[in-house]
Order: sequence, then structure tokens, then C-alpha cells
Amino acid sequence: MADLLFHRIALTLLLSLLFLFATFGSSSRTRFKYSLEKPHHPLDPLTSHEIKRVRTILSGHDSGFGSGSAIIHAMALDEPEKQRVVRWKKGDRLPPRRAEVLAMSNGESHVLTVDLKSGRVVSDLVNPTFGYPILTMNDIVAASQVPFKSVEFNRSIEARGIPSSDLICITPAAGWFGPDEEGRRVIKIQCFSKKDTVNFYMRPIEGLYLTVDMDKLEIIKIVDNGPVPVPKSTGTEYRHGFLNETVHIDRASVRDSKTGEARSVMYKGFASELFVPYMDPGEGWYSKAFMDAGEFGLGPTSMPLVPLNDCPRNAYYIDGIFASPKGDPILQPNMICLFERYAGDTSWRHSEILLPGTNIRESRAKVTLVARMACSVGNYDYTFDWEFQMDGLIRVTVAASGMLMVKGTPYTNVQDLGEKEADSGPLISENVIGVVHDHFITFHLDIDIDEPANNSFVKVHLEKQRLPPGESRRKSYLKVKKYVAKTEKDAQIKLSMYDPYEFHLVNPTRRSRLGNPAGYKLVPGANAASLLDHDDPPQIRGAFTNNQIWVTRYNRSEQWAGGLLMYQSRGEDTLQVWSDRDRSIENEDIVLWYTLGFHHVPCQEDFPIMPTIAASFELKPVNFFESNPILGITPFFEKDLQVC
Amino acid sequence: MADLLFHRIALTLLLSLLFLFATFGSSSRTRFKYSLEKPHHPLDPLTSHEIKRVRTILSGHDSGFGSGSAIIHAMALDEPEKQRVVRWKKGDRLPPRRAEVLAMSNGESHVLTVDLKSGRVVSDLVNPTFGYPILTMNDIVAASQVPFKSVEFNRSIEARGIPSSDLICITPAAGWFGPDEEGRRVIKIQCFSKKDTVNFYMRPIEGLYLTVDMDKLEIIKIVDNGPVPVPKSTGTEYRHGFLNETVHIDRASVRDSKTGEARSVMYKGFASELFVPYMDPGEGWYSKAFMDAGEFGLGPTSMPLVPLNDCPRNAYYIDGIFASPKGDPILQPNMICLFERYAGDTSWRHSEILLPGTNIRESRAKVTLVARMACSVGNYDYTFDWEFQMDGLIRVTVAASGMLMVKGTPYTNVQDLGEKEADSGPLISENVIGVVHDHFITFHLDIDIDEPANNSFVKVHLEKQRLPPGESRRKSYLKVKKYVAKTEKDAQIKLSMYDPYEFHLVNPTRRSRLGNPAGYKLVPGANAASLLDHDDPPQIRGAFTNNQIWVTRYNRSEQWAGGLLMYQSRGEDTLQVWSDRDRSIENEDIVLWYTLGFHHVPCQEDFPIMPTIAASFELKPVNFFESNPILGITPFFEKDLQVC
Repeated sequence: MADLLFHRIALTLLLSLLFLFATFGSSSRTRFKYSLEKPHHPLDPLTSHEIKRVRTILSGHDSGFGSGSAIIHAMALDEPEKQRVVRWKKGDRLPPRRAEVLAMSNGESHVLTVDLKSGRVVSDLVNPTFGYPILTMNDIVAASQVPFKSVEFNRSIEARGIPSSDLICITPAAGWFGPDEEGRRVIKIQCFSKKDTVNFYMRPIEGLYLTVDMDKLEIIKIVDNGPVPVPKSTGTEYRHGFLNETVHIDRASVRDSKTGEARSVMYKGFASELFVPYMDPGEGWYSKAFMDAGEFGLGPTSMPLVPLNDCPRNAYYIDGIFASPKGDPILQPNMICLFERYAGDTSWRHSEILLPGTNIRESRAKVTLVARMACSVGNYDYTFDWEFQMDGLIRVTVAASGMLMVKGTPYTNVQDLGEKEADSGPLISENVIGVVHDHFITFHLDIDIDEPANNSFVKVHLEKQRLPPGESRRKSYLKVKKYVAKTEKDAQIKLSMYDPYEFHLVNPTRRSRLGNPAGYKLVPGANAASLLDHDDPPQIRGAFTNNQIWVTRYNRSEQWAGGLLMYQSRGEDTLQVWSDRDRSIENEDIVLWYTLGFHHVPCQEDFPIMPTIAASFELKPVNFFESNPILGITPFFEKDLQVC
Repeated sequence: MADLLFHRIALTLLLSLLFLFATFGSSSRTRFKYSLEKPHHPLDPLTSHEIKRVRTILSGHDSGFGSGSAIIHAMALDEPEKQRVVRWKKGDRLPPRRAEVLAMSNGESHVLTVDLKSGRVVSDLVNPTFGYPILTMNDIVAASQVPFKSVEFNRSIEARGIPSSDLICITPAAGWFGPDEEGRRVIKIQCFSKKDTVNFYMRPIEGLYLTVDMDKLEIIKIVDNGPVPVPKSTGTEYRHGFLNETVHIDRASVRDSKTGEARSVMYKGFASELFVPYMDPGEGWYSKAFMDAGEFGLGPTSMPLVPLNDCPRNAYYIDGIFASPKGDPILQPNMICLFERYAGDTSWRHSEILLPGTNIRESRAKVTLVARMACSVGNYDYTFDWEFQMDGLIRVTVAASGMLMVKGTPYTNVQDLGEKEADSGPLISENVIGVVHDHFITFHLDIDIDEPANNSFVKVHLEKQRLPPGESRRKSYLKVKKYVAKTEKDAQIKLSMYDPYEFHLVNPTRRSRLGNPAGYKLVPGANAASLLDHDDPPQIRGAFTNNQIWVTRYNRSEQWAGGLLMYQSRGEDTLQVWSDRDRSIENEDIVLWYTLGFHHVPCQEDFPIMPTIAASFELKPVNFFESNPILGITPFFEKDLQVC
């Protein structure tokens, strides 16, 4: 169904990026401006011109789009069928261009498909599942203003001695917690004091919690548990120019002209959903279990990258284009950066000590290509890296920084802190509790080893064997056994150090000269599991985190791990539901899903802004090449290095 | 007892390195030559002069040291008592300089302590435990020549049609597998063909296995299971100049003058032991379960780093000094490199989207200091990085490259491969099986938060709570509970994703203004567990891998996780044994041990040399600072960057 690339995805990278690696070295340092381009590739995002045309077509379909009563929440290329894209070659005509639009009209969710050539809406699904599209910026701004109209709210604020000019209210998503909020779009409101600071996140006005109807723009519920001291803004400034320090630097510029082979590995990979449950079940906090991709969108919250700091000097920048709620094209500059990285590590090395007189000391520096995008989902900043090594390895890294979601407390010292307050998390500043929470990022990895067919998922198990007495001086060893997953349920995997597997995606019809099937393996990094009960509403919606690994049969409509219409959804259209259909996945076109997670217990160092933490996983060739593909790379010599 | 820094340790880094960070930016690019230096710090390694003096003193103690019948296997600074080192300040006189020597004399192990000032051997322990010191290069060279004198061996080789001029024999350690090899130093011999290649590792002469008495230099046992085809050397060349490729590059040079605070975090950290069990229980392979630090030494196998390739252009190099078996000083240049790294990542970032008109886009680049050493333990190369971030985080990374330990096989295609052969591992080239194996690296981390006393280990448990109906709309959440480890057994920890903890080392007597104890936490990365049975001889000796985390009471003699005299030891002096004493570790001087592991199932890409794989863990401040210590660092500006 949908592929809202620049709307909900952190980063979508086709394998063609690998080929960029070959050519970037010699290209000039221009910025890609998709706004000014015609589409050149079947998967190129919609251009400004195309977005305008979609708007015109929609206005003819439903007058609401002209009058403004119908609202566009997301618009993106409706990708052509995969087989058409795979067959397409440079010089061929593009497949028909279509747009997919998520819209709200008269309180109903619409999923529309628009054909640009014929000028027709070819499908318009109304409420295909429970739930609503991602919020628009208008939704957020309008909802955040609702409290100010309320007498009760203003009285509460006044009782706290806070002038309304100091107030800023944000809009945490409501989630879904049963039938009483169904049938209408609701959102929570949490307010802060922005007096003397831009880092209002550290100054919560605790104990005052609102629920708002987003369409009627009225308060449904207001809870006032009485005032809690608002933390002071001391030391929360983070902007440069308000603090004095000096740093002297020389900087990196790396280029490399090596190229990999032009064989398919992955058709598409992207962050499909982020699930961030907070661990405070109290009023005002129980609903904080965010689905950042489906509720707010990773594209719309991506701000321009900061040159020289978010990406190094040798980076190239790519713009993004979005559609406004009314369907106007919006250009977001510097959405993605691409750069070659030389971090000082080696691709391989060997010093020979056993051959006297040979003096063999061979080492090769590692140069990689990184594609990066960063989104700011309110307080939190997530940076997504897709890194390509010359040996074919793909590393995906998620880095988190920004501000904590904090809770106000009357206490300023852990000695005085009540047991109930301490339950939520540690005291990280005066009157500030850093509420414990988890982060889970679920990646959709449409692996196609050599072709979008004949792929299988093989669990390579390391099984401990007990040796009978007398057979060996050893008593035990590990033996490798391979299990081909027949159906989707065979591929629902919880990682365990004590039951180790490698996870191979192979094409058994493409064999090396030795007869090994061509493949890639998923290499998990550090990880964490969601431990919430399966009947807890956030976990029902976040059921895609019930396993760390899933493999599903390719289905064009199964892109969003929590469902296409995630906002207030009831968890009826998740990866868990699809996988439980238990389709055959042997020798098929299959999709790998991986969830990367971390628990976050805040500490003082996270105040007032968090040092970046990162986690990653890798996709690594396994018998994909006949031998080490980078055996022949050249060492660095002084004469090759730029003179500074 | 012992601290053979440059003999068995991959890399020992005192916290003083952190202070180097402050000064390196402005220092000139000289190389540290410890050989030419007087000791300046209580922990400075022995100088050439001191090594010569030790030799002279030993000759007076035992005429064998003069005649050459007594052999020095390791010599290093005998570190002063920790309290003396901690109290010492620049300008103070150095504590008495002492050397510790591991030696063999008349088939007995000696642990000697030599006082340099008085010129006396102050202690000489004979066979304090089962086992022998690390091998000398003479041991290895002499043992590898033994087969050539054997009629039976030469007949076996002849039967295989291999001229002895093509032969090279290496010396895998024998391990310990019961009483029949006790009481004498034995070693295994495995031979390869070096015809037409320097990468002889890929050409095993399979089916011929020898055991040699290292002191008598005679064969104890020879097993000939008949010839197996020797793999061809096609495509195994890896030296530059024998292959043609081009790479164009611009390179990195980064400097930063920020400094951390001068508070103690870690007294000493180093790789204490490497355990590498192979998973083939058959003749000739069962004994391959290496203890690279205790059997061969990570220092003696460290070759000079290759400038521009092992370390970037802006690196500083430090020489190492060893003692020869006769006690002569040996200089190894470029043993360690130090460099500032700028990999293109951020220290922190935030883009503000909720404050209209402010246009806040703050981002700070990350610059770190890396200290690196690389050893080549025969076929395998291990690179050890100690990386220091400006926010106080210490990241330890182990990278593995070099050659696989492979097994010959008659087969050239997986279709023909017998089931028994396939048991050992995958076919990765014609006639070459990559035998499955594990790597475990156990780190000794002598954490001293603010002082070498009053430290405690706190397990910060994330416990799932079930909420009673009606209390919240949530049904579950995670709650943090802290458990202070009272004794060593409380700190024997097996990691599990489904029972998550943070692991804090805190000083409860040093509290922040909020009352939180100052601390650091261990942040494990991806890891693997040893799954061998506990009664399997390799696992008895490698018992320090029975848990991933241990905390012991500080004891000067407990440095080597597998024991000081590891060679042929029986596992009687391991971390497991020490920890089972169950000493109190609350509010004490304590040592953290962490084991990082990976399973290695080889693949074609690992032939003929392995692309580098890496794994890491972190030590991260937790309430050690009052708030984010790098809030005030400055962004990069174009004008600050060197013009190339």
C-alpha cells in the first residue's frame, strides 16, 4: 500500500547508494536539489511539480481539498511494483508516477492513490483500519493553544504563580488505552515554563494534565493534582554564544574511488517505527508510550543538518520535499548528508612474526560511505546512519541525543525524595526526575540477495555437543547446524547469548564455486528487549517489539511495523499480526525486520542535554563473494595524502 | 605479585592518559622513546639501563643466569604498592624500583622479585602454582625445528610429496588435558607448506600431528592419519606490490584542546587473558584452546604499528622495551600509537522545532583520544583501542584480523563434503575448512572512583511490575531497584536481555549536590558466552569466562585471569577460584572484570585474510559529574578548520 518515504522514514537507502560510492570521489561538491529535478529513477521522490499536480487532482476528487476541510497528513511517491523497478534500466521510460496520500476528511481517515498521468484518484480507502494518519504541524500547533482558552486551566496556572506568557505547551500523543477515547482524535497536553530559557524541557509544570479533542479543539479532561515546584532554569542553556570555550581543530576530508560489485543485496531499508514507552504509570504519564514514526513522522521532524558539526566538511547534502496539509510543496534543505568517513581504523591487517626475514607488516585503512539523517521528535534527537564498507558490510547506527522527558518533583536531594517519586527514575537536577524509559527502533530491511525471489532465511545454530568418554580429550564443543525457516513463525526470534545463532539470508540458487549459497548475515549489536506485559495497551500496539527478529513474506502493504494508520490505533495491523499468518518464506521474496533497543535510566550527565548514545547492527556478506573482496586495496602512502 | 605490563598485556592505560588529552594538541610530533628515558613516574616501564642491571643482579643470584641455563621468560616493573603510587606527586622521589622476573631453571618455574637499588633478589618463588611462564621466542623457534630431525616425520612428509624446503612448522600451545603431559613443558607442532606463498596459514598439512618436549627438544608423540591434499596457494597473496589497485585519498587530522577533570576513575585497565577455543575435538585439533596472553604474551607478539595505515597521520608513537631470554633489553619501536579521532559523529545535538522563530540548531562534533596497540599471535591479529571521550566515557575496542586457523580437507565443493568434515566448519576455499571457534577477551579494570577505597558495585535492576486493575490504564512498567553487592559471589554475573541491569561502580562517600553517589557504569556491547561444559579441560582453565562480569576485592597478586603461570596450568589459579573466596566487596578497593566474546563461523570472505571485525564495551560516568560536562564545548566553524 503505502510508502511515505520522506514522511515517516528516518532514511531510505536503496542499494544504488553503494554505486554512488564509486563515483563520488570525482564529483563536484554540489547539493542535490530534488525540488528542481525531474524524476530520473522509478523511486525518486515526488518533485515540487508533481506535488502541485497531486493537489490539483485531489481538489477535483473532493471539494474539501480545495476548501481546506480535507487535510493532507502525508503525501509521497506510491512506489511502482518491485518487479518493475528491478527490471528498469537507465534510459528506460519511468513507470507511471503515482502518489499515495494520507488525509483526514470529516473525521475519517483516507488512504488515496493518485495517478499523475491520467489525473485520477485510482483508489480512496476510508478507515481501512482503526487509527489515524501522522499528525500535521497544524494539529500540533492548534492543540497546544487549546489550554489557554480554558478558565479552569488558566486558574490552575495562576494558582501556581506562572504568567501565561511564560507557558509553552507540547502535545504528547495519546496512544490507545481502551474504548473511551475511540472515535475521535485526541491528544495529551503537557506544559512547561520557558521563562529565562529555551530549554523549557527541563522546567515541567507537573501535576497538571490535559486531554484535548484535536478536531473540535476543546479540552476533554483536565486533571490538577496541585502544584509541584517548577525547576529553575539554572545551567540549562545549550546554545553557542551563551557559553565560552575554545576548540582548535584540523578536519577530515576523505575520498576513495573503490567500488563494490553491482549485485543486489537490499531493495530497501528504513526505520519503520520507533516505540518509546516511559515507565511511570501515574496520571499524566501512563500514556507516554510514543510511536514516533507513526504519530509524528520522522521525516516532518527532521530539521536541516548543521554543516561541520552534524556532518563533516567533506559531506554532500540532499534536500527533502514535503507536502503541506494543503498540498503545497515544502522544501527542507540539508535533510540528508553523505560523506566518506576515515575514522583511523583498519579494513584488515597482518604482521607476520613466524617467517624470519620477511618483515611482513601489511595494513589497510578503512574508508566508508555514510548517509545520515537526523530528526527531532520534540525533545529527543535521533540520528540515523547507513554506513557502507568497501568489503560489502552495511552498518546501521541510531544515535540519540537532545533533551530528556523529565518530571517535576518537590524534592532537591535524594535523601528527601519520597519512595513513590523515586519510582519513576533518578533525581538528575533540583526538582527534576529523569523518568526511566525504553527506546525501540524497528527496521524494515527488504533483503534481496541477487534477486527479489528465491531468498531463504537460515538459522545457523551453534549447538553444544557432549563428547562420550574416550572419544577425545575434550568433553564438549560447539557444532554448527543449519535450519531453514519454512514459515514466518519459524522466524520469530528472541536473541539469547546462551542459545547463539547466526542469521543468514541466502539465495540457494546462487552458489559460489565451492557450492556455498550467496548470502548476507544480520549481526546484532548491543540490544535490549521490551519487557512490558503483552496485554499492556502500549505493548499491544508495539507488538512488533515482541521479537528482535522477524522475517515476513514480501507484501507491498506491509511497510509500517505498527500499521499505516498508527495514531490511536489498537494494534490490529502490526508486524506481529502479519507474521502470525505464518506464510511460507522459503525460496521467496522475503523481508527481514530487526529491532534495536536500549533501556535508559537517566543520570546527572543527561542534564540539561544528553551526550549522544548510539547503538548499531550490521548486514555482512557471508559467502556472497568468492573470497575477501578487499584483498587488493592499496595502503596509504605519504605521497597520496593531501598536504595541509 | 606480578605485573608484566609489556609482556602479557595488550595495553595498560592509566588514567593519566586522560590528562595527556589536555596537552597533546600543542605538543610537537615527537616519538616517546622510553629506551632513552629515566623513569619519571612510579609506573614507568623498566628502562634499558634497568633491564641490564636486573640481568647483572640475577647473574649474582644464580650462576645459571650467567651461563644461559636459566632463561628469562618475562621481565617487567614490579609495581609499587598502589597506595604509594596514588600518593605520589610530580617532583616526589620515585618509590624503590623493583623488577619482577618469570624464569625457568632446571625445569622449574621461578617468580623472582629484584630490588634495583639494593641489587638483591628479594624473593624467588619456585613453582608457586602448577604451570609455566609464557613461551620465549627461542622456545618457539627451537620447538618448530624439532620435527625436521625425526625420521618418522620426514618419511610422512616425503609420502605427501612435500620437499622439506617448503615446510614451515608452527607451535600451538598444548593446553592441559590431564596428568600424562604434566611435569614437563610440551607443545604441539602443526606444519604448513610455504611453497609459492607467504600466507602459509592457508596451506595446512593436515593429518600429521606432533607433540614435542620443549626442554629436551624431542618428539613425544607423532600421529599420522595419512595425507590430505594441501590447498593451493592461489589468491592468498596479501602484500602490497603483488596486486594492483588504486585508491585516491584526502586524510584526517584532528586536534582538540578540551580536558576532563583530574579525578580518579581507573587505576589500571588491561586485557588480562584471551581464550580462543576451537570447535574440533579430533586428533591434532582438540588441544587448540589458546590462552594467548598467558601462553605467548600479547606484548612479545606486538609488532610495530604501520604508520598511515594502522594509525592515522596525526598519530604519536611510543616504543616498547622487553628483556630477551638472556636479559638483554630489546627495543620494539612504534608499539603504541596515540591519536585524536574525529569520525564525523556528534557529542550532542538538538534541533528545536517547538519554539517558532528561534531557529535553534545546535550540534557539537565528537573528538576522542585513542591509544592503540596491535599484536599478532601467530595467525591472528588483535588491535586494542582505549578511547577517551571528552564527556568522560572510556570505550575499549578489540578488533580482530589476520589469518584463520584452517584445516585441510580432501574436498573442494560442499556437495561432496563429508558430514564429519563439515562438522568442524564451512568450506571456505578448495581443500580448506575454516574451523569454528570462539574468542574471549577478559579485561582487568581496576576502577577507583575518586580513591582506591570506599567503592561499591551496585546492580541497578530494571524489574517488571504488574499493576493491579484500576490503578492505572497501564498494566505494567519497569521499576529500578538497586542491589549493592556485599560479596564477590553477588557480583558473578551472566548477562541477559530478559533480566536487564545497569552495572554501577560507585563511591558512596562522594556524593553530588543532589546526593547521588559518584560513579561509572559498565556498558556491555555485543557479546557472546562460552558454552563449553565446565568440566571440559579448556573451560576449567578458561573458567574466568564462566561469567561476563566479576568484581573482586583488590589484591595485588590477582592480575591474570587465568593465573600468572598459565602455560600448561590446570586452572587452579583463575578468577573463578579467587571470586569463590567470596570476600566482602562493599565499600572496598575493588576490581571489575569484563569478558567480551564472539563466536566465529568462518566464511569465504575470511579467505585468505579476514576483514577486521570489532567489539567493544564502555565505561560511562553516572552521576560522576554534576551535569553534562561537555555542555560548553564550541561548535566547529569554517574559520577554525585548517585550509588544505
